Amino acid sequence: MPNAAARTQAITDTVHRYIDAVTNGSPDELAAFYAEDATLEDPVGGEVHIGSRAIAGFYSAVTGVERKCELVTLRVSGNEAAFHFRLTITAGDHKMRIEPIETMVFDDQGKVTAMKAYWSQTDVTQL
Amino acid sequence: MPNAAARTQAITDTVHRYIDAVTNGSPDELAAFYAEDATLEDPVGGEVHIGSRAIAGFYSAVTGVERKCELVTLRVSGNEAAFHFRLTITAGDHKMRIEPIETMVFDDQGKVTAMKAYWSQTDVTQL
Repeated sequence: MPNAAARTQAITDTVHRYIDAVTNGSPDELAAFYAEDATLEDPVGGEVHIGSRAIAGFYSAVTGVERKCELVTLRVSGNEAAFHFRLTITAGDHKMRIEPIETMVFDDQGKVTAMKAYWSQTDVTQL
Repeated sequence: MPNAAARTQAITDTVHRYIDAVTNGSPDELAAFYAEDATLEDPVGGEVHIGSRAIAGFYSAVTGVERKCELVTLRVSGNEAAFHFRLTITAGDHKMRIEPIETMVFDDQGKVTAMKAYWSQTDVTQL
């Protein structure tokens, strides 16, 4: 990437597109944000999903329900981003909200090489 | 640590004490949160400070000014934490606010083994 400001802007744009995809995207569209050999740890301390196929599988499990995702706070620093977002999930009569903080490391192609999501059951609110 | 809930509580308590120490603590008190061979990267993408002595040196540079630090959002996940905080710095007539997101990895003794702070100049507000 040409310079730091352009890199910061590109990462900012990618995080916004990712948040939109968490609301509307397919598992493959979500997996497309990641590099081929990327890792995904969600929640941190849980299983680490390695590679595009495993990552698409992870997203398959979460895309079967109605979702709405909003970005709360974003920080971009070097090749990485940290952001706090609000995810509201509706499954029939059941509605809940999760507000994780996620971190992402980006490669020179703007693909995510490592994602970590920080949250626990205490951060899940039944609505 | 005995179990997941106790570990989560211990990490939560440590982050609160760390935030207090960023307001009032000495460089040695801040370095005492870290394991002997810990790493500190603040901001992410900048120099990585390795080991207690280098970490105390890093904090020496930031403790010469009047500081006030408040926790905004904390997520504890496994052995790790991610948190958004607000740091207000006053140096003479000059006052500014920085709101980083930080991540910390903890060892079994509750010491920080790796800290990363996500922020850039665009997250600094002159007051």
